[in-house]
Amino acid sequence: MGPAAGNAKDSDLIYGLHAVREALRSGTRPLLRLLLSRQDRQFADIVQLAKAARVPIHLEPPPALDRLVPHGRHQGVIGVVAAKRYAEIDDILMTAKTRQESPFLVLLDGLEDPQNVGAILRSAEAAGVHGVFLPERRAVGLTATVAKTSAGAVDHLQVGCVTNLSRLIEALQTQGLWIHAVDPGADKSYTEADLRGPIAIILGGEGKGIRPGVLDKCDQRIRIPMHGHVGSLNVAAAAAIVLFEAVRQRTVAHQRI
Amino acid sequence: MGPAAGNAKDSDLIYGLHAVREALRSGTRPLLRLLLSRQDRQFADIVQLAKAARVPIHLEPPPALDRLVPHGRHQGVIGVVAAKRYAEIDDILMTAKTRQESPFLVLLDGLEDPQNVGAILRSAEAAGVHGVFLPERRAVGLTATVAKTSAGAVDHLQVGCVTNLSRLIEALQTQGLWIHAVDPGADKSYTEADLRGPIAIILGGEGKGIRPGVLDKCDQRIRIPMHGHVGSLNVAAAAAIVLFEAVRQRTVAHQRI
Repeated sequence: MGPAAGNAKDSDLIYGLHAVREALRSGTRPLLRLLLSRQDRQFADIVQLAKAARVPIHLEPPPALDRLVPHGRHQGVIGVVAAKRYAEIDDILMTAKTRQESPFLVLLDGLEDPQNVGAILRSAEAAGVHGVFLPERRAVGLTATVAKTSAGAVDHLQVGCVTNLSRLIEALQTQGLWIHAVDPGADKSYTEADLRGPIAIILGGEGKGIRPGVLDKCDQRIRIPMHGHVGSLNVAAAAAIVLFEAVRQRTVAHQRI
Repeated sequence: MGPAAGNAKDSDLIYGLHAVREALRSGTRPLLRLLLSRQDRQFADIVQLAKAARVPIHLEPPPALDRLVPHGRHQGVIGVVAAKRYAEIDDILMTAKTRQESPFLVLLDGLEDPQNVGAILRSAEAAGVHGVFLPERRAVGLTATVAKTSAGAVDHLQVGCVTNLSRLIEALQTQGLWIHAVDPGADKSYTEADLRGPIAIILGGEGKGIRPGVLDKCDQRIRIPMHGHVGSLNVAAAAAIVLFEAVRQRTVAHQRI
């Protein structure tokens, strides 16, 4: 890692045109510096945003960028950001309160593919979810791949980190949240469940699903009925389907008021 | 490519435990031969399925498999299959008729990421879609990456190839299908559209969307309302959301009968 990237322990990388642009726009994850491979009209708006935010801009030879992010996936632009602070339960519930909405959360149990986590964060942000909890151990945190796949969603979404998911579920239940577990073995279809009001939706890792001890803590298990032969959906697709069914139900509820 | 893989022009590779197992189970894409990196209990059911289907099994040194599919993504197992025959409109509509269901199709306009195409095929198969049309030019066909990401769905789903999407839309309209275009600029929400009856859903490439000339041919444009800041969903997530809303509506309609 070159000196321009700073210390990996207290900084992180955001790369690609879209992700860096969103980070600069949102301002929730301030850039320490911006690295560009060349002067190019393609970068004009990013340079303008960086200048407005007083972010130092460094022109670096392409191999220097490749060393930080291999295979040219950086598209010639890398932002060095302070490592994102994880949100606490209270922060997330306060966000819901400020927006005058019922809490709408996502909890992930043991997902290991950063592409899936990034995709879920993107769909969750688009669905208006107030916060997502990622497990601390044995699974992906807020890596650069997650940030890139999320297409900038991590900059607008509160992301918490949880060491004990069962205890988090209990804490959320105390706050009045109803915990729905997406589980292929459930009897109830997700479209028959009431996804309005204060809820958290739990999804498990591809293949293994939600751990039995965690499942036992949930208020309800819901499944997505399968109409083909393959028998399972990608976890990011499952998340998108359930989150937007919740949005549909919650929007209809709003119209009724 | 080693001699065991055969001629790349008239064969294709399926790799990974899950994809090869599904290919053997479904039998719709017969394996010409099966390549294994070692004898292992993990492969026991695959070997049994291959023997039952009289598929020749070759033990090959791991580097030979790595040459065919780099970075160990083959998980020690590669199936060599005859290149899949693309389905025609009549095949797909006949499938719907045989199942006594209204036609439910997906058309893709210019998607370029094989991961997204594979993910859409997987969700489409799980939603009970009768066929998916991929564009012939400038976009991905049924590559090994598509097959792997689809988790075996390509073996159970009819996949057509289209050179002129506007003409295909006209042909489907003649057959009574209603063509819905998923377009962020649409006025109507996808949940307000009637997705029952004979329909085709069109999705465009990430970033560019559906080409204007194609959009003009469609009967209706629908959008997925965004509730966050990022402003767009991954196209595979959008596909999953719209396809399963269609499933929800079509299932409710069935219950009414």
